[in-house]
Amino acid sequence: MRLREEVLEANLELVRRGLVLFTFGNASGISRDEGLVAIKPSGVPYEKLKPEHMVITDLQGKVVEGDLRPSSDLPTHVILYQKFPAIGGVAHTHSEYATAWAQAGRPIPALGTTHADYFHGPVPVTKELTKKEIASDYEANTGYAIVRAFAKLNPESFPGALVRGHAPFCWGKDPADAAHHAVILEAIAKMAYISSGLTKTLKPLPKALHDKHFLRKHGSTAYYGQPAGKN
Amino acid sequence: MRLREEVLEANLELVRRGLVLFTFGNASGISRDEGLVAIKPSGVPYEKLKPEHMVITDLQGKVVEGDLRPSSDLPTHVILYQKFPAIGGVAHTHSEYATAWAQAGRPIPALGTTHADYFHGPVPVTKELTKKEIASDYEANTGYAIVRAFAKLNPESFPGALVRGHAPFCWGKDPADAAHHAVILEAIAKMAYISSGLTKTLKPLPKALHDKHFLRKHGSTAYYGQPAGKN
Amino acid sequence: MRLREEVLEANLELVRRGLVLFTFGNASGISRDEGLVAIKPSGVPYEKLKPEHMVITDLQGKVVEGDLRPSSDLPTHVILYQKFPAIGGVAHTHSEYATAWAQAGRPIPALGTTHADYFHGPVPVTKELTKKEIASDYEANTGYAIVRAFAKLNPESFPGALVRGHAPFCWGKDPADAAHHAVILEAIAKMAYISSGLTKTLKPLPKALHDKHFLRKHGSTAYYGQPAGKN
Amino acid sequence: MRLREEVLEANLELVRRGLVLFTFGNASGISRDEGLVAIKPSGVPYEKLKPEHMVITDLQGKVVEGDLRPSSDLPTHVILYQKFPAIGGVAHTHSEYATAWAQAGRPIPALGTTHADYFHGPVPVTKELTKKEIASDYEANTGYAIVRAFAKLNPESFPGALVRGHAPFCWGKDPADAAHHAVILEAIAKMAYISSGLTKTLKPLPKALHDKHFLRKHGSTAYYGQPAGKN
Repeated sequence: MRLREEVLEANLELVRRGLVLFTFGNASGISRDEGLVAIKPSGVPYEKLKPEHMVITDLQGKVVEGDLRPSSDLPTHVILYQKFPAIGGVAHTHSEYATAWAQAGRPIPALGTTHADYFHGPVPVTKELTKKEIASDYEANTGYAIVRAFAKLNPESFPGALVRGHAPFCWGKDPADAAHHAVILEAIAKMAYISSGLTKTLKPLPKALHDKHFLRKHGSTAYYGQPAGKN
Repeated sequence: MRLREEVLEANLELVRRGLVLFTFGNASGISRDEGLVAIKPSGVPYEKLKPEHMVITDLQGKVVEGDLRPSSDLPTHVILYQKFPAIGGVAHTHSEYATAWAQAGRPIPALGTTHADYFHGPVPVTKELTKKEIASDYEANTGYAIVRAFAKLNPESFPGALVRGHAPFCWGKDPADAAHHAVILEAIAKMAYISSGLTKTLKPLPKALHDKHFLRKHGSTAYYGQPAGKN
Repeated sequence: MRLREEVLEANLELVRRGLVLFTFGNASGISRDEGLVAIKPSGVPYEKLKPEHMVITDLQGKVVEGDLRPSSDLPTHVILYQKFPAIGGVAHTHSEYATAWAQAGRPIPALGTTHADYFHGPVPVTKELTKKEIASDYEANTGYAIVRAFAKLNPESFPGALVRGHAPFCWGKDPADAAHHAVILEAIAKMAYISSGLTKTLKPLPKALHDKHFLRKHGSTAYYGQPAGKN
Repeated sequence: MRLREEVLEANLELVRRGLVLFTFGNASGISRDEGLVAIKPSGVPYEKLKPEHMVITDLQGKVVEGDLRPSSDLPTHVILYQKFPAIGGVAHTHSEYATAWAQAGRPIPALGTTHADYFHGPVPVTKELTKKEIASDYEANTGYAIVRAFAKLNPESFPGALVRGHAPFCWGKDPADAAHHAVILEAIAKMAYISSGLTKTLKPLPKALHDKHFLRKHGSTAYYGQPAGKN
């Protein structure tokens, strides 16, 4: 099953990029045709992970293949797959700068074109969960909190969010794309942090410039990179 | 003696994780059955350390085996072993961010779930030692200062402390666990520092969420990782 | 063609120095005799780049050799070559600290001799582009914005600039020199950031000291390094 | 000549520790018996340096052996050797955090025991040079500025200083010791920077604790490390 390998590779990419300490992170992928999700098992050291360790579940998060427990964050991934039908992969890390913004409870403002190339506005941050939402189905409720933050946003134009007091979740068209966005998010989180220290009057990027950069890379008018089929 | 190897390995883990500059750090372990402590010798370069260099002392810190002087921080380790009977290993570093909090004299606030997964509240910081405590038995008095900071805290729920103006000491069920906590402490110290720069109204994690995360990993209701015996 | 190799090597130097994430960067070079520019293709992973992938264009940016699309920033490079006749290479990165200054919209003040060795004053930052300049010929207009920032500055005494809300562009006598200046700019941007956090009364380096250092390395009175022809 | 090798090794240590970018740094050593100084040549890439490239000068900085120009900072080193008779090596870097403090014009306060283990008080910063001192014999005058900052300080208790607007110079009993102190200075500069961001009421380490740590490692009462002759 090719999905297992893609999911393993996305998990390893998070490690190679320095986004994951010990086992604090997990990536998953979905086969929409089969209705199956593959996800990293919980608490297994990355250096021992093999494709066959990936846990396979259905779209309700019920394990259908695999002897190991799935990542404890599985229910968050599952809600994202249910509610964001265009996504094919999810990556969760505790990467330092993105997590620090989540801990500060602040959306990451769009200060530059690096940000604008990927997120069509500030990186959203979820609202606090209620005590009840924490007490039962906590991980699923984390997913719902993200979904609520996207009431007016398109997840294809904002490939990630900060869970308040916790850390980022990112997604993409497949597991590799989700991991790619996790790397990008950490980079823009770090640069926004540094910029914040340099001026008290931070201004977001002008809308015209933001749109220009986002649309250079996305949609029918994109002209960045090589044409499809090339390279 | 297996303990020597575990202690050596914990010391080397501190180096691999970038927590130790030159010889500024030391890890130890205890065999509760035999009443023996193994600790790194003082001032020996890490790349030359072998298991047989570990110094063996009794629970009063008297050397019972080994030609080298033990780490000058031995008396601090010994007091921790005496007063915290559940711990099996101690790790001391001057890791950058944790040390900076110790230098600032501030407990590290619990801002996120990464912190909550390991410490059941802010990371405590000791009070200043008196001139008399500094003048004689300084290292033992450093241990007593940590113990006093735990008058109302359980060392199993707070696997480390900041010694004011000095640096962190961490502990765990064995030397590897102590080193693991030293790595975690540095990570949460760095993220709390970054978060501090992003908002003037830092709020600690809500208690319900803090408890949720701590208890996902600790105690009888834990559900993180694989069941015992697995993996 | 030797220029292709020099341009490839400059691109790889940006990667080795940690200035480039994924494909966010590009270096080019010009043969003034032939009126030809060589530049990295757009969106091709660095590890796959070979000299023959470099795209060759004329001084208007028209591709004259190569199957791949040139970097989307080509028009910016071309304007710089047109308007700064003494330069032979251009390097563009999204390096973290320099980009953060660009995002903050602040020139980097000349705080120390490291800066003074390379830039004969603050690192300039461009003005915002108008909506019209963004809407059409955006990349060329980015080049013109840099040129306008140099109305009273000599590009040989200021080997780079920050594009507001975007990132740095650097240049030099050849592609290697341009990449060298991109590395320097990141280093002085980082140190200026740290200094900014240490005092509220930042003072630029006194002019006499600034001149001394700049002229130790540049112009007819230079005495740094080995005489030409040596080593 | 053994001194050449020691000086080369000290220069390479600065590179290995990440304190030196390109050729921004230099280490030297002195043979007091012979009255000879060995120093890195100016502007030669570190990876090409061999012992025979080291330039040998007398105590006035006159080259007595070697074909290459000595480091342009040689006169600073020479003044330090003349005025601080107990030192045997000097190391100069533009390491990031120490340089940032120098650029901010602030002495590094003694905030913790890591600092106290090496410097018996704040790291001193020189006064500004006058225009006349900059105009002629600039590098020697840099040395005199350091010497003036030590009017009431013992260079053996303060193994380095920050040259205002420039960068640190460190020294020690031999070239390796000087390089060691350059590494330490960078570490304490970084930690002091982080601590500065964490509290508005930074307090220096209490004198009793500062003395305790400094004297654990220095002078007749030292008890850190192994006894002389051991290990």
